[in-house]
Amino acid sequence: MNGAQALINTLVEGDVNVCFTNPGTSEMHFVAALDQVRGMRAVLGLFEGVCTGAADGYARMLGKPASTLLHLGPGLGNGFANCHNAWRARSPMVNVIGEHATYHIQHDAPLTSDIEGIAAPFSGWVRTTMTPDEVSQDTAEAICAAKTDPGQIATLILPGDSSWNPTKNSLAEQITPPAPTFDETAVSQAAQLLKSGEPTLLLLSGKAVLDEGLELVGQITAKTGCTPMSNRPTARRQQGAGRAIMKSLAYPVPPSLKQLEQFKNIILISTAEPVAFFAYPGMPSRLAPEHAHIHTMVTPEQDVVGALRALADAVGVTGSEKTAVYTHEKHTLPTGELNLGAIWQSVTAQMPEHAIMVNEALTSGWGAGKFMQNTVPIDMLTGTGGAIGHGLPQAVGAAVACPDRQVIGMQADGSAMYTISALWTQARENLNIVTVLFNNRAYKILQGELDNVGAVRQGNIADSILNLDNPQLDFVSIAQGMGVEASRAETADQFNDQFAAALAKNGPHLIEVLV
Amino acid sequence: MNGAQALINTLVEGDVNVCFTNPGTSEMHFVAALDQVRGMRAVLGLFEGVCTGAADGYARMLGKPASTLLHLGPGLGNGFANCHNAWRARSPMVNVIGEHATYHIQHDAPLTSDIEGIAAPFSGWVRTTMTPDEVSQDTAEAICAAKTDPGQIATLILPGDSSWNPTKNSLAEQITPPAPTFDETAVSQAAQLLKSGEPTLLLLSGKAVLDEGLELVGQITAKTGCTPMSNRPTARRQQGAGRAIMKSLAYPVPPSLKQLEQFKNIILISTAEPVAFFAYPGMPSRLAPEHAHIHTMVTPEQDVVGALRALADAVGVTGSEKTAVYTHEKHTLPTGELNLGAIWQSVTAQMPEHAIMVNEALTSGWGAGKFMQNTVPIDMLTGTGGAIGHGLPQAVGAAVACPDRQVIGMQADGSAMYTISALWTQARENLNIVTVLFNNRAYKILQGELDNVGAVRQGNIADSILNLDNPQLDFVSIAQGMGVEASRAETADQFNDQFAAALAKNGPHLIEVLV
Repeated sequence: MNGAQALINTLVEGDVNVCFTNPGTSEMHFVAALDQVRGMRAVLGLFEGVCTGAADGYARMLGKPASTLLHLGPGLGNGFANCHNAWRARSPMVNVIGEHATYHIQHDAPLTSDIEGIAAPFSGWVRTTMTPDEVSQDTAEAICAAKTDPGQIATLILPGDSSWNPTKNSLAEQITPPAPTFDETAVSQAAQLLKSGEPTLLLLSGKAVLDEGLELVGQITAKTGCTPMSNRPTARRQQGAGRAIMKSLAYPVPPSLKQLEQFKNIILISTAEPVAFFAYPGMPSRLAPEHAHIHTMVTPEQDVVGALRALADAVGVTGSEKTAVYTHEKHTLPTGELNLGAIWQSVTAQMPEHAIMVNEALTSGWGAGKFMQNTVPIDMLTGTGGAIGHGLPQAVGAAVACPDRQVIGMQADGSAMYTISALWTQARENLNIVTVLFNNRAYKILQGELDNVGAVRQGNIADSILNLDNPQLDFVSIAQGMGVEASRAETADQFNDQFAAALAKNGPHLIEVLV
Repeated sequence: MNGAQALINTLVEGDVNVCFTNPGTSEMHFVAALDQVRGMRAVLGLFEGVCTGAADGYARMLGKPASTLLHLGPGLGNGFANCHNAWRARSPMVNVIGEHATYHIQHDAPLTSDIEGIAAPFSGWVRTTMTPDEVSQDTAEAICAAKTDPGQIATLILPGDSSWNPTKNSLAEQITPPAPTFDETAVSQAAQLLKSGEPTLLLLSGKAVLDEGLELVGQITAKTGCTPMSNRPTARRQQGAGRAIMKSLAYPVPPSLKQLEQFKNIILISTAEPVAFFAYPGMPSRLAPEHAHIHTMVTPEQDVVGALRALADAVGVTGSEKTAVYTHEKHTLPTGELNLGAIWQSVTAQMPEHAIMVNEALTSGWGAGKFMQNTVPIDMLTGTGGAIGHGLPQAVGAAVACPDRQVIGMQADGSAMYTISALWTQARENLNIVTVLFNNRAYKILQGELDNVGAVRQGNIADSILNLDNPQLDFVSIAQGMGVEASRAETADQFNDQFAAALAKNGPHLIEVLV
């Protein structure tokens, strides 16, 4: 057995059995080993950002790491943006990055670069494996690091000779990450705040907005009258019928300040203090009111569900509370003009239970709220690190993770273009993904941001930089060119029919809407 | 004047008057300032790798920096691979990377990351400008760093408040980089080696393979009987009719060893010792024969043309030498089947004088040599850092740099997909670029590398990872979807006609060939 085989062997044994890959020469032994060691599903991406975004989407849905296989520093660089998003999402991930053979690095061949340096900003664990005998042990440590609560990115750098030379260490023992705990005093203090009668906010993220935690949040809310709210970043949220009612912190600063101003106490549960996404002249970075008492009850690294259970006990939850939950209100299908509201109405009216919505609609998603309130139960994946181009790849990862569920991508045009080749992987793997492509022919969010930052507009250059209408992108043509069936809807009825047909069929489909 | 305006003001004054940009919120004041300060051409890319690749292509053609404007760490990450190529090409470039306002960074908002860390691997100069009063001085220093011979990447990180706050320092004085020198003793030693009568190789790159240096090389070769050869990486080579005859070092190890084995002396001129692109089991990293004397005459950082002129003097070049140069042999147009040879025959038969060829054909370019020997004079841009996806963006940059010249992109399919949205920028700017897209439906170079590294093939997974035929990419459809007129050629006659028509028209065109 060679190092590459030991690597795959140890990954599979550690339940890391999907590899999103875009390999090169230095990874060829790993690629060959895919035929020699059973149990690893290899999913090819045509660009590394597709691979890392897919690994992120996969991890968000299953709570366990996939691996990536990328080609030296530039390959990892291409994967950087979606690694950044995955880091902010606290997604577990095992990156395997090929490197020149150990003895070749000194010669400064063209592809030589500082791979550890590139990986450092987003990795919780980085190591270069210098001999084949160390591969299986390093792999086991990488898996353990990735699985350490709440999940992090482990980057294992594999020189060619560590990959191709033989080793007898074909399988290291798996390492169990330490079980997370929580601070009972911090929970007691939170309970005191909730009993104080003062307006108190539970600000939530991570496992607190997934079913088990969310149910406890609902009970605590019912018992104490506090307000639950999800904070950014939220990697995955379970919502719709049967889930506790919960608002989200707004993106723009003024409404988010307004959302928070009433609260005397803000209890942080698996999240940090709320801050503005960007700084704007004359606006604060910190969003909580100055008078508010901010209390960290449990961090993402701790036992979030355990802490919520202890809090429920401490405030006297009995289990008989009447929790306020969303119901399912079946919408009628829209007719007539196809505007943003009609699109969201049609999607929410037709989407099946337990669909996974990957939402990178950005400005085309604003105003969707009223349709998204009382839907069937779904999982929602959204942006976490602010690096756009996550939607199409995350849909790939979610669909690979959950082959029995329908994935629905709500996708802005500008963002789609960063990782557009994810469509090819959707077709290659015949994934059940319906992408609704909002073509508004602009970086519309930036047109707003130009005003938000107080920039003075005078002339045409700035406007031209934010417009995507010259030439107009034709996403039907692009998608078909990558092997994905696609259609364009111009009326609500057309959209209704195309969306229904796309849901009914096997494999991916893209519907372009000009909005 | 605010910091953003001072930045553009100083860039334009320093002759940095093109900005390849993909901005976000933190760059909005820079975008607004494009309307307030005259003289900066802004070219929009839909993906940052397009911007950095275009800046590389621009710099290779003009020998001076363009700027880029990118959005925080993930934006720079997306631009990493082509920055890596530009670093290896020794291209001058000024990256401007937006950052959160200085006071906002501490709050760890979603887009916060270690931008200096990401820039470090490829930048010769990195600085975060902490106040608007420092912007113009830092910009002048960045330009100077970029222009320092032979060219390097300067990365200036601009926090929002350094951009939007007012300053009176609207224009710092430009700084002249130190004039490069050379080592006269090293030149004398090289002259001795050339006079020794032993088989001596001039191994060349950088300015030694551009007209002025190349003419001196030709004279020295004629006078001394030495052998000139271009080494990797070569950012730009001037070749074709009237240029000195010069072989290139081969990519695979065995033929490159064979090319070098005869030489007793290897004189390095603006290049490093020849090394293998990758390590392969059982093959050497160093390509020069062990017995060879390797002599560094002049480094890329030194005065390469001055050293060559001194060498010419030292070996007694009078200017009357009969230099061996390529002639122009007009090929006939191919007929019948459209294979690789026919494509190269047609392209070389039809391409106009002083065309700029951007060559990322990879395996589809092997065997092109006989057609490329005696062409019209052209400039050739090739890969330098081994990060694929440079071709389409470099064509953008070369066309922006040289609007009066025809750009011809010889483009592999797999590589094209990393930065495919460069086609949209080609259309937006109506650039005279004809792209010949070789669609062989495979990572064909990796199919060879799988064997070269000695990997054992058993099974179908490895093969499937290197095939791009499921589904087949349709580049005509993709290009049209991005606003570029496109056609598919299936016979030599069709290709001849389509290529002629594409050359004749204004603006970009893509011809797909299934090979």
